Amino acid sequence: MKNKLVTLLAAAIGLTAIGLASPSIKARQTVQTEVLDIIKQDVSSSTLSYDIVESLTTEVGARMVGTPGADAATDWAMAKMKALGFDKVWVEESQAQLWQRGDLTASITAPYPHKVVAIALGGSVGTNGQAINAEVAYFDDLTALQAAPEGSLKGKIAYVGYRMERHIDGHGYGKAVGARVAGASAAAKKGALAFIMRSVGTDTDRIGHTGMMRYEEGIAKIPAVALSNPDADLLENMLRREQPVTFSLNTSASGPTGDTVTIANVIGEVTGAETPDELITLGAHIDSWDVGTGAIDDGIGIGIVLAAGHYIATMEQRPARTIRVILFAAEEIGLVGVRDYVAQHKADMSQHMLGAEWDFGNGRIYELEPGVGPQALASVRDFANYLAPMGVGLASTNTAKGQSDMSLLGEAGQPAFNFAPDGLDYFDYHHTENDTLDKVDQDALKVNTTIYTLFAWYAANSGVDYRQ
Amino acid sequence: MKNKLVTLLAAAIGLTAIGLASPSIKARQTVQTEVLDIIKQDVSSSTLSYDIVESLTTEVGARMVGTPGADAATDWAMAKMKALGFDKVWVEESQAQLWQRGDLTASITAPYPHKVVAIALGGSVGTNGQAINAEVAYFDDLTALQAAPEGSLKGKIAYVGYRMERHIDGHGYGKAVGARVAGASAAAKKGALAFIMRSVGTDTDRIGHTGMMRYEEGIAKIPAVALSNPDADLLENMLRREQPVTFSLNTSASGPTGDTVTIANVIGEVTGAETPDELITLGAHIDSWDVGTGAIDDGIGIGIVLAAGHYIATMEQRPARTIRVILFAAEEIGLVGVRDYVAQHKADMSQHMLGAEWDFGNGRIYELEPGVGPQALASVRDFANYLAPMGVGLASTNTAKGQSDMSLLGEAGQPAFNFAPDGLDYFDYHHTENDTLDKVDQDALKVNTTIYTLFAWYAANSGVDYRQ
Repeated sequence: MKNKLVTLLAAAIGLTAIGLASPSIKARQTVQTEVLDIIKQDVSSSTLSYDIVESLTTEVGARMVGTPGADAATDWAMAKMKALGFDKVWVEESQAQLWQRGDLTASITAPYPHKVVAIALGGSVGTNGQAINAEVAYFDDLTALQAAPEGSLKGKIAYVGYRMERHIDGHGYGKAVGARVAGASAAAKKGALAFIMRSVGTDTDRIGHTGMMRYEEGIAKIPAVALSNPDADLLENMLRREQPVTFSLNTSASGPTGDTVTIANVIGEVTGAETPDELITLGAHIDSWDVGTGAIDDGIGIGIVLAAGHYIATMEQRPARTIRVILFAAEEIGLVGVRDYVAQHKADMSQHMLGAEWDFGNGRIYELEPGVGPQALASVRDFANYLAPMGVGLASTNTAKGQSDMSLLGEAGQPAFNFAPDGLDYFDYHHTENDTLDKVDQDALKVNTTIYTLFAWYAANSGVDYRQ
Repeated sequence: MKNKLVTLLAAAIGLTAIGLASPSIKARQTVQTEVLDIIKQDVSSSTLSYDIVESLTTEVGARMVGTPGADAATDWAMAKMKALGFDKVWVEESQAQLWQRGDLTASITAPYPHKVVAIALGGSVGTNGQAINAEVAYFDDLTALQAAPEGSLKGKIAYVGYRMERHIDGHGYGKAVGARVAGASAAAKKGALAFIMRSVGTDTDRIGHTGMMRYEEGIAKIPAVALSNPDADLLENMLRREQPVTFSLNTSASGPTGDTVTIANVIGEVTGAETPDELITLGAHIDSWDVGTGAIDDGIGIGIVLAAGHYIATMEQRPARTIRVILFAAEEIGLVGVRDYVAQHKADMSQHMLGAEWDFGNGRIYELEPGVGPQALASVRDFANYLAPMGVGLASTNTAKGQSDMSLLGEAGQPAFNFAPDGLDYFDYHHTENDTLDKVDQDALKVNTTIYTLFAWYAANSGVDYRQ
């Protein structure tokens, strides 16, 4: 109620704007600071985005494609969007490959026996009902594995020990994830029976990190698993003793079998009052891995974009353009939902004026990078100036294509804002059992929700063509 | 080699002492600062205690009573003591109750289904091959559970949500552990089918904390398990919705069956040159829980006391009294090994002049509390003054009875020094899968090993009767 009253008051006193409108924009004031101030005040004191994450993680929890949680998440999201006052809510269904984790046991069997904590990588095959027990061959990284002589891994289990680095922008992930994606086929080419690796994660917990892997066509499919970081340390300490180390792996991971399962992008809109066909998109992904409750990845994103949509839906003043919130399905297994979205929306992609996704966890936003046309930059700078007191810098580059799912909309021509948060702890929890509600930084979440709400309102009302 | 040379040099230049000898001590200088300085310099630059923990956790790992690791640990410890130059090494065997963890699955089944991470408490019975599925009744703490009306928990699962507090001296543990020990029988008295609790731990990891529980005589034995902290949060968030919450538990924990298993205290001595019958005891415990590799609890203790013994064993100058290192068996399941030790050593308990144990993990020692006779205090103050530049304060009290196992020697009359380390993070890892080598703070370990070596030398050569 306060929200509406304050907004009405702002309307009554008249709106003024700071900054220079770009030459192509005539009557529109691109940054309506009075409205932004009210949004900032209201949203920064609201716990709504956290409450949404609490609801999702408690009432649904894990929601991997092909599990009951995925369907429950679809229902939850539709009901939540309706309850939050979105004008239109719908799903767009398609198909994804089914993969099932099954059970897994792993151990070092010699020279010193230890049970170890390991987790199957997404897409991995199993061990056909019996354990693989073989000597471990060590490699520093994927490149070293790829350089192994032909046939040298025959009868062995290949192990890559590369340890992910911790960086604020998460760039250590890119250096580590190659082994996860391509390690199994690289090992199989040299004759290996299985592929094991140090988890792609920055933590020291006895919890493995899952995540998608891929088999190359025409190469034998061998099981692929990640060890927890402490177990990787243990294995390496044992290898350092220069005796043969043997490892036993038994997993009933099922896929890929070719079976498919229905997935659903869940979409909600707050309809624009002036140019409803022009879309400002806010993205997050609705699926998670099966092991945690998906609070960080990507419950926080869902909390942010639903809370932003709700706030604007309940303002007296309507946005000029339509705010479209898209909860993409099947992100974790390879951006499947967004591929379907792009395919289904080819005809109206030009109406996607500007988009931003949230799929990077917990930290406070410290930078905005745009990916817009040159004429739009003046307005972007005005908006960035507005955000600056909140600790958000403007990147010197203008190459953003959209984050996570939204990158495919970027490839399809949608301009984007990339908001970069402090990602120092993101890969402590990413794709693990430890991705749970208690990891959410509630203060940072309030700030980030405020910034996304400001973004949505600004973009919906700037009048700027971000392609120009 | 350096060690011996430097010690010889010190002997050559003559030893002087600071401080006042107590009136009962005549010729002996109680604090030989020149020797202590050499010990301090040598030990503080040595990685030996860490290397010992690495060896134990890699070559043995988990070593719960009744598992192959326990026997492997006995063999490892005897071999290690011999290799480290102890003069005598032996075991003293006895019997302990056998308990086996078995497997466990747990889930919230309604209103929103979730798999949860839980762990059987040590000594818990199982669920007889089928799951218990029942409504959860919430209690703030053990006292609230004990106050539940008679029969009110019939057909239910009792849950205690008390959250352990984090304190430097670990006193939050005492406030939390009562529910772990006595919760199952308290719940069974009111008719409960099973007892579940929030883990006794200060972390937010999706890993449960085990630890010993006890059944009261004449009360039905019901299964007792601990939830990881994030799963306890989840359960409580669900209970807050004021709908019935049901929980399913299936565990094949076996005990107690009455079967016993052989345990062994492993003892090593560096024989005193002047009064070999007078013993300075250094304690740690050799068993661990089965889930981690027991690096923190109590690998660090083993590393410290073996390294201290080794250093003194390799000094040219011999200690006046005998240094006895005791690695107690079966501490985790109720101080079983030390009970046997005390029973077997009644006759020579008066020869136990002074003892100290290490069983509190990782942090730097910040305080020394003695538990000695009044005439010995002057010498204790001199030694404490020597330690002060290392950040070790002297407690204002003189009531130490020995820590962990050593408390039973204290009850039997042995004077003690209690060294208090920073325990802020100890209960993040205590009794969990996360108790692994990477958690060891190598810098703090060097300091603490130095202090224990200084202690052993000081006590062996002070000439002080710590009972007086």
